[in-house]
Amino acid sequence: MDLTTRDSVTELYDAYARRDFDRVADIIDEDVDWIIYGPVQVFPFAGQRRGRKAVLEALAGIAKDYVLERYETRIVVVEEDRAAVMSDVAFQQRSTGRTVSTQLANFLRFRNGKLVEFREFANSFDLVEQALGRWIEVG
Amino acid sequence: MDLTTRDSVTELYDAYARRDFDRVADIIDEDVDWIIYGPVQVFPFAGQRRGRKAVLEALAGIAKDYVLERYETRIVVVEEDRAAVMSDVAFQQRSTGRTVSTQLANFLRFRNGKLVEFREFANSFDLVEQALGRWIEVG
Repeated sequence: MDLTTRDSVTELYDAYARRDFDRVADIIDEDVDWIIYGPVQVFPFAGQRRGRKAVLEALAGIAKDYVLERYETRIVVVEEDRAAVMSDVAFQQRSTGRTVSTQLANFLRFRNGKLVEFREFANSFDLVEQALGRWIEVG
Repeated sequence: MDLTTRDSVTELYDAYARRDFDRVADIIDEDVDWIIYGPVQVFPFAGQRRGRKAVLEALAGIAKDYVLERYETRIVVVEEDRAAVMSDVAFQQRSTGRTVSTQLANFLRFRNGKLVEFREFANSFDLVEQALGRWIEVG
């Protein structure tokens, strides 16, 4: 059981890192429950998505705005059908050429080798500042 | 090994939820490596801390500004010396009486039953908006 989940995690992140979206699609359940936590007015691919098609559209949205520069999983915790992954990532913003980098925290659940639940966290305040290329006034 | 880590996780979150900071201190390693990802200009208890004393000061900083209303662990993934915990939490801001609520993602590592590594993620952009009580302009 652990092995199967770990294999699915490895496959999913490897496929995403090499931009093999057909393979990514293979591993995503048709009815996946998916949330990337972040402001949609800055990151239109963030928010809740239901189902493989909607998730692939969100991933295409990321690829439309950003070129993947680095996606390195640093911590992988697996237990039964669940996994948690912390990664160090960098993307180049296509519109400006600037690189944005962050740590990502993912919680995943698999059923029959397919991703059925996904939650992504980042320090979204910091990411928004990087994406805008300016500090946000909070005073 | 798994049991020991799970026991430590349960103890830590139970102690924190019941505001038993002496017990929390017991479970934190003297040399813990600790990061809460978020903007320090809004959340002065965020950022990197090294060592139990500095971490307890950060926790006291949270308690100084916020009253804990809810801390419910929803997902706990344990493997060997590591754990990942996703929680649903709410705090009342002492200065305004407003409640802020969020999902938290924690990555933890234990050694000899003590927390030696801690990383906390939240949708910090959303949390800043809740703490300020206004939308942030990003246009």
